[in-house]
Amino acid sequence: MAMDGVKALVFDVFGTVVDWRTSVARQASEFFAKHGVQSDGFAFADAWRKQYQPAMTEVRSGRRPFTRLDVLHRENLLKVLPEHGVDPSKLSEAEIDDLNRAWHRLDPWPDTVAGLTRLKTRFFIAPLSNGNIVLMANVAKRAGIPWDAILGSEVSQAFKPQPEAYLRTAEVLAMRPEEVALIAAHNNDLAAARQCGLRTGFVPRPTEHGPNQKTDLRAEADWDVVAESFTDLASKLGC
Amino acid sequence: MAMDGVKALVFDVFGTVVDWRTSVARQASEFFAKHGVQSDGFAFADAWRKQYQPAMTEVRSGRRPFTRLDVLHRENLLKVLPEHGVDPSKLSEAEIDDLNRAWHRLDPWPDTVAGLTRLKTRFFIAPLSNGNIVLMANVAKRAGIPWDAILGSEVSQAFKPQPEAYLRTAEVLAMRPEEVALIAAHNNDLAAARQCGLRTGFVPRPTEHGPNQKTDLRAEADWDVVAESFTDLASKLGC
Repeated sequence: MAMDGVKALVFDVFGTVVDWRTSVARQASEFFAKHGVQSDGFAFADAWRKQYQPAMTEVRSGRRPFTRLDVLHRENLLKVLPEHGVDPSKLSEAEIDDLNRAWHRLDPWPDTVAGLTRLKTRFFIAPLSNGNIVLMANVAKRAGIPWDAILGSEVSQAFKPQPEAYLRTAEVLAMRPEEVALIAAHNNDLAAARQCGLRTGFVPRPTEHGPNQKTDLRAEADWDVVAESFTDLASKLGC
Repeated sequence: MAMDGVKALVFDVFGTVVDWRTSVARQASEFFAKHGVQSDGFAFADAWRKQYQPAMTEVRSGRRPFTRLDVLHRENLLKVLPEHGVDPSKLSEAEIDDLNRAWHRLDPWPDTVAGLTRLKTRFFIAPLSNGNIVLMANVAKRAGIPWDAILGSEVSQAFKPQPEAYLRTAEVLAMRPEEVALIAAHNNDLAAARQCGLRTGFVPRPTEHGPNQKTDLRAEADWDVVAESFTDLASKLGC
């Protein structure tokens, strides 16, 4: 069976476990409505997310010390609000913090909790995300995601695809890299994990970026397992 | 009400959440029986635990870099086995590892899971232990302890009662120290937490060290809340 010898499944979260785009768009739309602003929630979610990789690149490059994602998200929020008709200086700190915590209130995909609940019977399950611990924990608490542990980026002090993000996670689990499998909807994340010796599983999320998504629609390498959903993954792994 | 403004309850684990002594003694007795050794499981558990603070003192003092508890436990195990009639050189590495993982198979006190399940409805709940993440996670998985996150010592890179253990935990939770309360059966742990600005709750575990326990039988300061059990704590905190 695929995944022989694997003891832990670790999961990419944004896009793979949760539908960040719809969740952020919904909350942004509510925010705009409350503040009488005519802006599109989806466009805003995309713009906010577009700042995600550049912000982490500053840390990955060493130009900036490790900074947790909540802080980067908030800086990025202040950058994108003006482009969407909101003057941040007119908002209270509490209002900005609350909107920033939209990332703590992300909804799982419909198959996520059912699949993870089955997978947990045979495997140790944990997130392997660039998100910080309290972000991951708040998402899980609200959505009922049954993680065995929350391994946030504070543990590895690194952002994927830096090798430390994968290797330090295996080390904390007291497992060899090949005893850990990354499950992700992103081929580049899986490629970086494989490079570090982890096993790999692909689950497509073809609407992560909306109805016209062009990337990551299918497995682009011979990943150890490819499944249609988390429940299909559970079936394929005998759970 | 006690704990107004508190958002997270963090818990000492060894002794407060789980009955380490009975659990380790049971597993040691099984080990001795299997290996035909006449030794007492409880005496062995006490001897093993007696090495716990001295091993951490090496790290706290800076004489040794941060080392996770699984590693310290294993070194201590090799020290105490000969005093109990077992020659470690006659054991396989796998046998030693398995006995060392007795600390991953600790049973909760009878009120633990029921109390935490109620407390979780109002508070963010997490361990604040000197144990490492995978140890905490394996204990929780086996016992059904419903933590919202596992904050192991790898996160703080410090052992209680070092201030960093408490302060870094609050920082990771993105909370001010006074928004976090430590729940513990040990007065000295609570004193160190209060020193750092955390709130405090005492739950006695009068048989943690066996039937003749002399220490920590009652609250020795005006902790913010004192309860008889985790379920009593839940009632006192309105859960």
